[in-house]
Amino acid sequence: MRARVHTSRAKGKQCFLVLRQQQFNVQALVAVGDHASKQMVKFAANINKESIVDVEGVVRKVNQKIGSCTQQDVELHVQKIYVISLAEPRLPLQLDDAVRPEVEGDEEGRATVNQDTRLDNRVIDLRTSTSQAVFRLQSGICHLFRETLINKGFVEIQTPKIISAASEGGANVFTVSYFKNNAYLAQSPQLYKQMCICADFEKVFCIGPVFRAEDSNTHRHLTEFVGLDIEMAFNYHYHEVVDEIADTLVQIFKGLQERFQTEIQTVNKQFPCEPFKFLEPTLRLEYCEALAMLREAGIEMGDEEDLSTPNEKLLGRLVKEKYDTDFYILDKYPLAVRPFYTMPDSRNPKESNSYDMFMRGEEILSGAQRIHDPQLLTERALHHGIDLEKIKAYIDSFRFGAPPHAGGGIGLERVTMLFLGLHNVRQTSMFPRDPKRLTP
Amino acid sequence: MRARVHTSRAKGKQCFLVLRQQQFNVQALVAVGDHASKQMVKFAANINKESIVDVEGVVRKVNQKIGSCTQQDVELHVQKIYVISLAEPRLPLQLDDAVRPEVEGDEEGRATVNQDTRLDNRVIDLRTSTSQAVFRLQSGICHLFRETLINKGFVEIQTPKIISAASEGGANVFTVSYFKNNAYLAQSPQLYKQMCICADFEKVFCIGPVFRAEDSNTHRHLTEFVGLDIEMAFNYHYHEVVDEIADTLVQIFKGLQERFQTEIQTVNKQFPCEPFKFLEPTLRLEYCEALAMLREAGIEMGDEEDLSTPNEKLLGRLVKEKYDTDFYILDKYPLAVRPFYTMPDSRNPKESNSYDMFMRGEEILSGAQRIHDPQLLTERALHHGIDLEKIKAYIDSFRFGAPPHAGGGIGLERVTMLFLGLHNVRQTSMFPRDPKRLTP
Repeated sequence: MRARVHTSRAKGKQCFLVLRQQQFNVQALVAVGDHASKQMVKFAANINKESIVDVEGVVRKVNQKIGSCTQQDVELHVQKIYVISLAEPRLPLQLDDAVRPEVEGDEEGRATVNQDTRLDNRVIDLRTSTSQAVFRLQSGICHLFRETLINKGFVEIQTPKIISAASEGGANVFTVSYFKNNAYLAQSPQLYKQMCICADFEKVFCIGPVFRAEDSNTHRHLTEFVGLDIEMAFNYHYHEVVDEIADTLVQIFKGLQERFQTEIQTVNKQFPCEPFKFLEPTLRLEYCEALAMLREAGIEMGDEEDLSTPNEKLLGRLVKEKYDTDFYILDKYPLAVRPFYTMPDSRNPKESNSYDMFMRGEEILSGAQRIHDPQLLTERALHHGIDLEKIKAYIDSFRFGAPPHAGGGIGLERVTMLFLGLHNVRQTSMFPRDPKRLTP
Repeated sequence: MRARVHTSRAKGKQCFLVLRQQQFNVQALVAVGDHASKQMVKFAANINKESIVDVEGVVRKVNQKIGSCTQQDVELHVQKIYVISLAEPRLPLQLDDAVRPEVEGDEEGRATVNQDTRLDNRVIDLRTSTSQAVFRLQSGICHLFRETLINKGFVEIQTPKIISAASEGGANVFTVSYFKNNAYLAQSPQLYKQMCICADFEKVFCIGPVFRAEDSNTHRHLTEFVGLDIEMAFNYHYHEVVDEIADTLVQIFKGLQERFQTEIQTVNKQFPCEPFKFLEPTLRLEYCEALAMLREAGIEMGDEEDLSTPNEKLLGRLVKEKYDTDFYILDKYPLAVRPFYTMPDSRNPKESNSYDMFMRGEEILSGAQRIHDPQLLTERALHHGIDLEKIKAYIDSFRFGAPPHAGGGIGLERVTMLFLGLHNVRQTSMFPRDPKRLTP
């Protein structure tokens, strides 16, 4: 077998190695005897941790379970050992420290590893069982997202990331030098998704990087993250789209609980957390209902006021108590707090056909029915004080017949974080980017 | 049904409509009688082309096949018609012109649509049966790529596009303003894929945008394209990786021919082309064999000289003649023409463990075994005159145990173009970016 040397410990004429492959490890024994000399035992004992070795030997059943390894019933009696790639002797962080639950570390004074050290040495930090599990599960989220949507008849599209004009007014956008001109990094694939709908692709999705030049240094903001985006034409009501998106998320949650139980349990060992709960069909609350719940809990809020982050969290707790779900849709946001392209509710001009979705009290998706009539879109843009010249291309997209449509964008790192009950989006981005971090 | 008005033609007391949904269309008839007044026939005849309508009516079998529609055996007798979204009366291009084969247009003097007009009005151009087929097939390529790799045990990763240092010396890289500093757009996910291999993910893939600030205005270069990237640790020989990549491409070709016959035929109507041929297992030629074939055909080339684009094309034709395949691997490139991180061949220091793959004589993948030993990597970088300080992070990734590994990157738009026998990569990028085009 090829494996990493996780630990090695000499003990008289024997050397005990723990050999690791990804999330799994096994005990190996080099003992002076028929197949190993004293020199070989010494050689094995001196192989630096994290080196990669090829080992030949015999697998033997053990009488007493080996509690420190994932393979508890067997050990490997080593006959040959070759070093394939030698690690430097001094590791910048210890893997055992990096998987220790924080509380245990505090209580017993044993070392844990802080986040910057982890991220500075990401190649090593990603080797821990926790990281292996997090990112294998994240790969599963993307897979389940696409599997579900392709079964529903969606088409995958690829949208450009370098764009010529900043879409929503130009705030929070990164500038790129493009030959002799300036260009920008797309803050969302929304315009392109909508163009695909206007081009008769009917139901589209894409997975790709999204760039936000916001100087936000919080647990849930990144300057570059992965967006799982959906856009869909509908026949009668935008709830056709809301239901498809919610069902897609439910299929992801179910798929993760079915296929990634090992990974969930591995992460829980370090970061204990209640299993993620959801209802079928998904709970859909109207904004005014949420306002009533918050007011009953003592919060003072105006009818057309947006939810603050603490109020979102509180609402998540109230919803969990009342409905026993960690996932719900908040529908019909006040028109005043949504972007200009949001379709107003035809029955109530203060409301809009827009929605957010929440996991454990944090927003993971924002979406809306989009205005598909160029006249109404122009009126709404003027109402918002937007320079029509800057959004001309956007409005023109709807001049040659556009079906009613709605969509939304999901943040991959947030879904991973909140599903697993982690506390920082940097734990679920392999190589996170924030205002202070651009490396590795 | 909801559909677009593809054409409408009044004829006495009747109006014939062709109604379109994506790649399919059907004839509809509004005739004065029980269900339609004279006014209604007039109304129907005046609906602008490309408008979206809801139609109620009765489906009737027809005696004579309707050659101009995809649904040839039925027509719709319209009882009600509503305009859902009215298109402006003057279209910037006619869909029928946009699907006309170029030759036919030349011969008969009928209009075709030039590429800039298409791209300037992409929302309309993407509605043609050809565009619908091209991009539905492209969605299939991504799906087959991932399906195959996930079945082979690969993990999908997400790599950052904003990076702090230009990886290979800094040529052809776009600069981004990153808060108060400069950053760059990644020219390839290679370093991150390799870090994932060093972090024990063993077999990884990613699909994402790749940025090249090259001022190349050719039929096959874009400044932003979609990379299908693979990286994999191997046990004994880098051909383990070459075989996996080639098999993945073969699975894609087979899947396309099985699942997308309708789309292939639709594209062929406008752009006639021989079916794509490939062998199983894939033909693998060594560079020296290719040189011999070219020399036999009269080309003069040095042993350590790279292939020019015309020579690649010629070689493609020679290989097709001799082996009857449009897809092959060219292995063991001269070390001198490959990047510094390429593993030299241990038996022959002038050769390297590197390879390109070709479709219809054009390169679609470049790949190599990468040097995983920091000492050798340093030597090779020095030999290439690369500033070690600039690639320190890259070299350091291999200091804590790195398995032998190889990989490669595939250009999605090129695969789509060459599989379908198209002639310009702008036909297979929804919203192409080149030195002269940043819109829409």
